[in-house]
Amino acid sequence: MDSLTRAVTELSTLMGERFSLDEKVLIGHGKDASHHNPQPPQAVAFPNGNDETAALIKICQKYRVPVIPFGKGTSVEGGILAVHGGITIDLSVHMNNIIEINTADRDARVQAGVTRKQLNRYLSQENTGLYFPVDPGADASLGGMVATRASGTEAVRYGTMRENVLGLTAVMPDGRIVNTGGRARKSAAGYDLSHLLVGSEGTLAVITEVCVKLAHIPPSISAAVCAFPDIKSAIITVIKLISEGIDIARSELLDEIQIDAVNRYSGFDYSIKPTLFLEFHGSDAEVKDQIESTRKIAMCLGGADFQWATERKKREKLWQARHDGYYACLALRPGSVGYVTDVCVPISQLADCIVRAKSDLSTSSLVAPIFGHIGDGNFHVVYLIDPQKPQELVEARKLGDRLVEHALALGGTCTGEHGIGLGKLDALESECGEGISVMRAIKRALDPHNIMNPGKVLRL
Amino acid sequence: MDSLTRAVTELSTLMGERFSLDEKVLIGHGKDASHHNPQPPQAVAFPNGNDETAALIKICQKYRVPVIPFGKGTSVEGGILAVHGGITIDLSVHMNNIIEINTADRDARVQAGVTRKQLNRYLSQENTGLYFPVDPGADASLGGMVATRASGTEAVRYGTMRENVLGLTAVMPDGRIVNTGGRARKSAAGYDLSHLLVGSEGTLAVITEVCVKLAHIPPSISAAVCAFPDIKSAIITVIKLISEGIDIARSELLDEIQIDAVNRYSGFDYSIKPTLFLEFHGSDAEVKDQIESTRKIAMCLGGADFQWATERKKREKLWQARHDGYYACLALRPGSVGYVTDVCVPISQLADCIVRAKSDLSTSSLVAPIFGHIGDGNFHVVYLIDPQKPQELVEARKLGDRLVEHALALGGTCTGEHGIGLGKLDALESECGEGISVMRAIKRALDPHNIMNPGKVLRL
Repeated sequence: MDSLTRAVTELSTLMGERFSLDEKVLIGHGKDASHHNPQPPQAVAFPNGNDETAALIKICQKYRVPVIPFGKGTSVEGGILAVHGGITIDLSVHMNNIIEINTADRDARVQAGVTRKQLNRYLSQENTGLYFPVDPGADASLGGMVATRASGTEAVRYGTMRENVLGLTAVMPDGRIVNTGGRARKSAAGYDLSHLLVGSEGTLAVITEVCVKLAHIPPSISAAVCAFPDIKSAIITVIKLISEGIDIARSELLDEIQIDAVNRYSGFDYSIKPTLFLEFHGSDAEVKDQIESTRKIAMCLGGADFQWATERKKREKLWQARHDGYYACLALRPGSVGYVTDVCVPISQLADCIVRAKSDLSTSSLVAPIFGHIGDGNFHVVYLIDPQKPQELVEARKLGDRLVEHALALGGTCTGEHGIGLGKLDALESECGEGISVMRAIKRALDPHNIMNPGKVLRL
Repeated sequence: MDSLTRAVTELSTLMGERFSLDEKVLIGHGKDASHHNPQPPQAVAFPNGNDETAALIKICQKYRVPVIPFGKGTSVEGGILAVHGGITIDLSVHMNNIIEINTADRDARVQAGVTRKQLNRYLSQENTGLYFPVDPGADASLGGMVATRASGTEAVRYGTMRENVLGLTAVMPDGRIVNTGGRARKSAAGYDLSHLLVGSEGTLAVITEVCVKLAHIPPSISAAVCAFPDIKSAIITVIKLISEGIDIARSELLDEIQIDAVNRYSGFDYSIKPTLFLEFHGSDAEVKDQIESTRKIAMCLGGADFQWATERKKREKLWQARHDGYYACLALRPGSVGYVTDVCVPISQLADCIVRAKSDLSTSSLVAPIFGHIGDGNFHVVYLIDPQKPQELVEARKLGDRLVEHALALGGTCTGEHGIGLGKLDALESECGEGISVMRAIKRALDPHNIMNPGKVLRL
């Protein structure tokens, strides 16, 4: 028997029906939400807790079989593909319990398979007055969000997973169960292992429990939409809002292609112009003030068609165009697949970066809407490619690589929130220089036999 | 020649007058702001930039001579003492330049020797409308603040160094110069080396440059002071303020012993009761609202002697009692030395933790005022000990150890903002369990010959 077969035999004995070799299950775990080709694992384990996760990792370590942590499969850089084969550990089935909510401390501890919507439903049912504000769009698992250092629309006010993780439980590659961080809001106690694991994409440990900060549901929420003559004016509006101390809760920019896509997809009649979607949280008086300041600033910069709403249904309608964004993109070219990428730059460089991206696109045959979380300087480009035409994938990759070059030249990063996975290994090397060797040293120290999600984040 | 002598000879040749063996200089670098006994290094180097720092570390590595980074010597856990001898690297003299300020992006890049007051003076002189909000009291260097994961009074609103560092430049133990992070507000690119170095206390690398977030100077600031019948009422007031969505900028609690000390020291006549010092930042209307809400909530909880001020001089006067805190403590017992410690717990457990600390103190002969950043659940105890009486040091250590036990039992951490240094090696082990072995693996991987600030943070 080869080592994989031995591992499978032992895991099967250990886990019984929580261990699957069913082909449908394998296929279901071989694909994320990206354009990367599916690569199923050789087995899928559904552990029921920290101890079983530790036991199964010990078996994988003994036989040097790769381990791939899996939450909901909503990531977009190929992070969950079994490129070197191995066992996928799916935490979404038996490790999706909410462990505790501490209302006065505004924190929650959950198993890693809990999704953000599940947590928010629970917080609402229990009338806690709290919610978990990190919103990447997809209903991702919290473990997956930790692993990819996810963020989303509300990060401009509430931060990303980096700012919202208080502590973790993780199983190390040798099966040790480690608790990092804790419930204290701050700590100066030793190396920050929590933040080492946030964004490590399953290459250092399997995250099994997550303690996160929660936010108070604001007494009042206001949404606004405004069209601009060009992207720069929209961005300067946001910079001015921030510089006036307005604590924007969301600030999304849709370029004219994206707005056109949304009009067609959802039957809106927005002007085909770069458009800003904003949200404000606070007391009634505060959000009223914020809307008024926004209107004034936006008008000075050529903003038009200003709409706003505070009532929930109206707000949701106003934001629908943003929420429909991705599917509206795809509908621009039926049968297409989205090659999705993201970069993040200092906000002062954002207009320049988008202009450069658009200039590259103008020389390409590909259509690619742009939208993003502009308060953070983070935006997405969705290259619409025909999966039957491999040269389009090559073209998208070339444009994506150029985009990373622009972002790095402007003081930014190769990914604001998607992670490295398989898709940005070169980009990370360009960005980090000597830092890569430090990352490699850490990886080798913690996972000497490279069993943890091999092939992702770093080339060893 | 032994290896130290060889290193000294080479360093002397490399650095000329920026390298000192002068006994006064050595003594000046052998003591921090704590009760720990002085331990001077064998030489002090004052490098003039990243390259010279790298060159000098290469020499120290070649001869396996310990390296101790030094900013302003304001830390309190013995982190800068040369417990194994070696070369102190003082960054405050030739590495104290402000490199760049990016107003639109609200960030600053400085050399590690720049102090927080120096940075804030510069930001004010240049009329940027921005300031650096992490305020640990002492005029620490930013490099030192990164190294100890410092925080202070405004962390409740603006975060600690953990939340305010965007990127770093550091020299690794083998002399590699590494840039971590960058100016983008968020990034999902690889392992978070910045946060691994934040709080590493010079045991992994020498931090040479720091990129930090800046905050807008609020249009209006309001301060309030209120006395309470007991500590619990003061804490519940703060919990209620937070739960009403009031974004407190500072919330300091002084216990009755500390208030008594301040009255004696500064000639105030505050009631000898647990007293809350608060500050609010925002628009005129916002801070007025916040003060009114605070007054109401505080009164429901028995708050009395409510005072508030918005005008700068009046605010400063109101806060003076807090700022005089430490010297007022010492004056309670002339000739005494403060054995200073801090812990941090979830705010729901804070009253219980302080009650336990006071109960322990009631069985001791030592006097120890308590004050803290209660919005974060973080507080300090200053055991006033007679340096001539070694048994008092033993007693303070015993009480401090008990305090850590209480904090850990209540879900907290052994230090909220002071760090581990020499003083909390055991406490860190109690807190982290298996996590310590992960920290050790990282330390060994990055600093295999243990030349970086040996003896601190971890026992190897």
